[in-house]
Amino acid sequence: MFDKVQKIINDLNLDIVVFLDPVHLLWFSGFSGSTGVLLIGNSEAVLGVDFRYHEIAEDVKAKNIDVYCAPTGNLLKNTLDYFSNKKVKRVGYLASRNSQSQKAMLQKSLNAELVAIDDQVDFIRSTKNKNEIIGLMESAKLNANLFKHVREIIKPGVSERDLAAEIISYAVKNGASKMAFDPIVASGKNASRPHASFTDKILEAGEPLTLDLGVCLDGWASDMTRTWVVPGKKPTENLLEVFDVVKNAKKEAELNLITGVSGHDLDTSARDVISKFGYGDFFGHSLGHGIGREVHEQPRLAQGSQDVMLEGMAITIEPGIYIKDKYGVRIEDSYIITEKKVINLGIDVFSDFF
Amino acid sequence: MFDKVQKIINDLNLDIVVFLDPVHLLWFSGFSGSTGVLLIGNSEAVLGVDFRYHEIAEDVKAKNIDVYCAPTGNLLKNTLDYFSNKKVKRVGYLASRNSQSQKAMLQKSLNAELVAIDDQVDFIRSTKNKNEIIGLMESAKLNANLFKHVREIIKPGVSERDLAAEIISYAVKNGASKMAFDPIVASGKNASRPHASFTDKILEAGEPLTLDLGVCLDGWASDMTRTWVVPGKKPTENLLEVFDVVKNAKKEAELNLITGVSGHDLDTSARDVISKFGYGDFFGHSLGHGIGREVHEQPRLAQGSQDVMLEGMAITIEPGIYIKDKYGVRIEDSYIITEKKVINLGIDVFSDFF
Repeated sequence: MFDKVQKIINDLNLDIVVFLDPVHLLWFSGFSGSTGVLLIGNSEAVLGVDFRYHEIAEDVKAKNIDVYCAPTGNLLKNTLDYFSNKKVKRVGYLASRNSQSQKAMLQKSLNAELVAIDDQVDFIRSTKNKNEIIGLMESAKLNANLFKHVREIIKPGVSERDLAAEIISYAVKNGASKMAFDPIVASGKNASRPHASFTDKILEAGEPLTLDLGVCLDGWASDMTRTWVVPGKKPTENLLEVFDVVKNAKKEAELNLITGVSGHDLDTSARDVISKFGYGDFFGHSLGHGIGREVHEQPRLAQGSQDVMLEGMAITIEPGIYIKDKYGVRIEDSYIITEKKVINLGIDVFSDFF
Repeated sequence: MFDKVQKIINDLNLDIVVFLDPVHLLWFSGFSGSTGVLLIGNSEAVLGVDFRYHEIAEDVKAKNIDVYCAPTGNLLKNTLDYFSNKKVKRVGYLASRNSQSQKAMLQKSLNAELVAIDDQVDFIRSTKNKNEIIGLMESAKLNANLFKHVREIIKPGVSERDLAAEIISYAVKNGASKMAFDPIVASGKNASRPHASFTDKILEAGEPLTLDLGVCLDGWASDMTRTWVVPGKKPTENLLEVFDVVKNAKKEAELNLITGVSGHDLDTSARDVISKFGYGDFFGHSLGHGIGREVHEQPRLAQGSQDVMLEGMAITIEPGIYIKDKYGVRIEDSYIITEKKVINLGIDVFSDFF
């Protein structure tokens, strides 16, 4: 990571880079607390933390990162004084992660030119190194086991809420620190809401059940969706047709997933299948997204996205069709793009409808 | 809420107020999605949402709020066009909630003067109306039941992780949408870390176990901490002494908790007790905080805080003593300040050490 950030420092002629948000503290240093100041210079970095995190920060053993347990007071100012007594002139920061108030504080404390480096940081985060890929694969493996576990307990009479409780409990018991996002457990009509949460609704035989789940394991996110039929009754012909369309759209995108293709073209490849069968108006979100420390990262797989698929990228493909007040179907897997092939991280989880 | 925001609009001579962050969308309109644009004018408000949230947003039935299901595109621009064709000149926004990028987007779309209204909004959020108090009390009640449930299963041989899994499962099964924050389940040495998460550590008889838990029920947070002894062995004399000091510090702050007192004076009242017994250096965080839609809100109960306790405020008191690499003790309850009395929301949960 250090060399990647240093390239940004050199390219943009910066003195230092400042990260204040938990995502980038975790990404760069492995620090998992909610508050800290990370200053990265040409050859070294310092992570400043307050009293609450002194002990947790000492677990940070990343190369070239000095941990500074700051006294009570202005953490940014104290960490800056500790890091360097040289005046800094150009400082890289994240315009999309720091609030207007934080920017004002940075300006006051640093008295330097602030340079937004969001695009550059988003890009270097989008291609993963070997350790990052291992982290993502382990997270995806636990998530796949979670789906297999849940499949065993889906039956009429169980509530969405009970399933959600069992999902989180299983994930935490088996190593997750938390879910990567609030679990979506949406049955019947609820499945027509792409971002439904879970409710007290009881599962009924033959209706669709959409599970969109991801765990956070050692700080790495996973993300997978299945729409399954609650056992006990055959689904309607209509549902079967919609499921097949979504499945074919996903397959088409997978066939097109190679290095060099754009996010726009991938989105189009799946969207064309859905449109061909007359459901174009019912696929209202984009095809997919990068995944890493966060569940949504670069690249974007969407109409208009010029992001190009590169070796080391980790992405999701998740077409869906949603018929308001009736039902919905979404199937999603996560993929790692390597030099020689694309690895589907969810391939061994039952992906047919019933 | 509407009248409170309108007072800000009038006081600061604004045309409209813009909220973009999920916390304030939820606070003002009850909308629980992650993305939306809320515009509030002199006599009406509109909530603009994209495709993913059309159905969820239709559940918003708050008075005076119009729900606008926007087409794909610039949600802010579309919602603004829908809301008014009048030019707006002065727009209130949240400098601490909106990123620098969002501010730039606001400036571009609105071409108006942006006025930070963070302090005013934080203040009106700090005093709760009757419905808000009911929401907080219901959340605290579920949280209290959670503590009572957990107490039954604490024994040597159980891991922190297993307890955490059971905690989240119980909360969700019994109505919570999620935990209000990542649960702290810290035993033995881990309890010396004020913001520890949970680990694979196995509980041992006689050691301290700090549980800092809160649930999110209907969008309302709760927050309570107990440090208990794992049964099977008497705690050490030293631990008993530290526990008594923390308990007395909490009691002292409770005695001082009335309308009119400042956050600084409350913090001092508890801190003086801890200092008197020689543990002043081991209470490194502030005494407490407001609670509502978020687990940390105004007012601040801390050294230097000029926030004054007012009728309708909901706050926590949580003194603690942390001896590095040895142990830690924290006791926390949440309180509602009413005209006639202060209500302790956690009073019926066992609060002694063992």
